[in-house]
Amino acid sequence: MTYIIGIDAGGTKTNAIIMDRQKNILFSVEVGFGNLQVDFQEASCHIWKAITKCLGSIYGERCKVIVAGIAGIEAKNHRVRLERFLRERTLLPIILVNDAILAYHAMLGNEDGVLTIAGTGSISYGRNGDKEGYTGGWGHLLGDEGSSYHVVMQAFRKITAEADQACPHSSLSRVLLHEISAKRAEEIKEFIYQANKGEIAALSVVVFSEAVKGDQEAREHFYRAGQELAKQTARLYHKLQLARPLKLASKGSLLEKNLYVQSEYEKVLSSMVGDVEWIRDEKNVSATGALSLASHYIEEE
Amino acid sequence: MTYIIGIDAGGTKTNAIIMDRQKNILFSVEVGFGNLQVDFQEASCHIWKAITKCLGSIYGERCKVIVAGIAGIEAKNHRVRLERFLRERTLLPIILVNDAILAYHAMLGNEDGVLTIAGTGSISYGRNGDKEGYTGGWGHLLGDEGSSYHVVMQAFRKITAEADQACPHSSLSRVLLHEISAKRAEEIKEFIYQANKGEIAALSVVVFSEAVKGDQEAREHFYRAGQELAKQTARLYHKLQLARPLKLASKGSLLEKNLYVQSEYEKVLSSMVGDVEWIRDEKNVSATGALSLASHYIEEE
Repeated sequence: MTYIIGIDAGGTKTNAIIMDRQKNILFSVEVGFGNLQVDFQEASCHIWKAITKCLGSIYGERCKVIVAGIAGIEAKNHRVRLERFLRERTLLPIILVNDAILAYHAMLGNEDGVLTIAGTGSISYGRNGDKEGYTGGWGHLLGDEGSSYHVVMQAFRKITAEADQACPHSSLSRVLLHEISAKRAEEIKEFIYQANKGEIAALSVVVFSEAVKGDQEAREHFYRAGQELAKQTARLYHKLQLARPLKLASKGSLLEKNLYVQSEYEKVLSSMVGDVEWIRDEKNVSATGALSLASHYIEEE
Repeated sequence: MTYIIGIDAGGTKTNAIIMDRQKNILFSVEVGFGNLQVDFQEASCHIWKAITKCLGSIYGERCKVIVAGIAGIEAKNHRVRLERFLRERTLLPIILVNDAILAYHAMLGNEDGVLTIAGTGSISYGRNGDKEGYTGGWGHLLGDEGSSYHVVMQAFRKITAEADQACPHSSLSRVLLHEISAKRAEEIKEFIYQANKGEIAALSVVVFSEAVKGDQEAREHFYRAGQELAKQTARLYHKLQLARPLKLASKGSLLEKNLYVQSEYEKVLSSMVGDVEWIRDEKNVSATGALSLASHYIEEE
C-alpha cells in the first residue's frame, strides 16, 4: 500500500496529513504558518518540519509522493526557492501548487465550480473543463480585498482619516489603538511598518469581537469584505463561463467563521449569479485535496 | 564665521549644502536617496556620505551644526537608529527633522501656512503660531494618496482588474507591462513584491510620458492625485484653523513638474479653501531651511 503526504500551508498554520488512496487520514500534524509571503525562511522551515514529522511516523516509509498547497507560492521567486529547498532534503516526488488549488480539490474534486478563500489574503480559483483561472490573489499591495489583512487595514485607515480631520476617534479606533499600545494615531505607523502581514491580519479577531458586541463600524468592515468577495467570485464565474447553478465552496476564517462576512457574501453573490449550489463540508481538510491532485498529475506524467 | 550644514534627504536623492548665516550657499553636493523607508541601511550611508563631503570641503572645519530633513524618519524606530548611526561618526550637534519641516522652513521661514509635498510619498505640514500639524504622510501601506507611488499602484491595480474581468488591457496597461518586461498580468506580482517603494514610484515617469502623448487614462491618474493632494491640504488648513488667504508652498516632482497634478491641485484647492497665496520659488533649495531651523532650535536651547 502506498501513501500520500498532503500539506496545506497557510497564513496561520501548516497542516500535513498522510492518507491512503481511499482518502483515509492515517496521520495528521499541525505546525506554524507556511505562507511564503509572510516570511519565506520561517515558512519553508515550518513546511519541512511538517514533512519530517510525516516521514518520521510509522507510515513514513510507505509515502511515495508529497503534494503541497502553499499560500504565496506565486509571488517573487518563491516557487523556485522552495523547490530547491525541498530538493536538497528529500528525494520523494513533490507537487507544489497554490493553496487554493489544493483546497479546491479537497472540496470539489474534479467537478467544475469555484472555491473562494478569505483568510490572511483572499483568492478565488475555479475550473470549467480544461479551463482554469483565478480572480483576486494579488497580495496585500495590489489587492486582497475581502481578506483579514484588508479589513484590519481599512480600520487603521479610518484612524488616519480621523487624525487628519481632527475628529475624535470612534469606539473601534480606540479599541485598536489600545490593542497595539498606541496612545496617538501617529504611533500606528510604527506598528504597521514593523509588523508582518500575518500579525496585521490577526487583529481581525479584535474587529470581530467588537462586531459581536454590536459595534456597527466593525460590522460594516465585514459586510464590505463579504461584498468584495462576492464580486471577486462573480468575476470568476463570468470569466470561466460556468454553467448554472454555480457549484461553490468557500474556505478561510472570514468565510467559515465570520457570520457578517458569510451572510453578506451569500446574499450579494446570489443576487449576482443567481442559483448557487453551496458545497459545504465543515470537517473538510484541505490537505486531502492532495489525493485527487496526485492522481491527476501522476496520470498525466 | 560659523557655517551650517543643511541636508535634504528624499526618495530619489540627498542634497547637502554648506551655508552661512546670510543663507548664502557656499558648497553643495548630491548623492543617492535618503528616504529611510526605501532602505534604511543604504539611505543612512548616503546621508553620511553627503556629510563627509561637506566636512571634507574647505568650509568643513567651520561647520558647527548639522540640520537634516529626512523622509521616513518617523516610521519604525528610524529616528533612534539614525541618531545612533550619526553619533558614532561625528561630534557635531545634529538636528533631525522630517523632510517636510525642512522644506517648510526653506519656503515659508517662520510664517504661518502649509507646505504640501508630493514625491515618492505625500505629506502636508503646516503651522499656525505655536500650533503645528500634518495631514497625510502615513506611508505607502496606510496612505500616500497623491504620491508617485500611489499613482503607479493605481495603474497596476487597473491591470489586475482587467485580468480579473478578462478585459483586454488598456494602452497604458500594455505600456506598463512592457516596461517591466511582463507578458501577462500575473507577472506584475513578481515585480511589485520584489521592487522597493522608490523603484515602483519611479515608474510614474512612464505614466507621465503617456499622459503627455495624450493618453486619457494616464491623465486621469494625475488628476486624481491632484484632487487627493488638494483634500489633504484643505484638511490641514481646517485642522490648524489658518487665516485667509492661506499661504501655500508645494514641493516634489508631482507638484513642481507635473502639469496635470499641478493644475488640478490648484483648481480643487481654490474651490475648497478660497483665497490662496501661492509661495513660488522655483530655485528654492529645501536644504536652506536648515538656517531658520538651526536658529530656532539653538535659541530655544
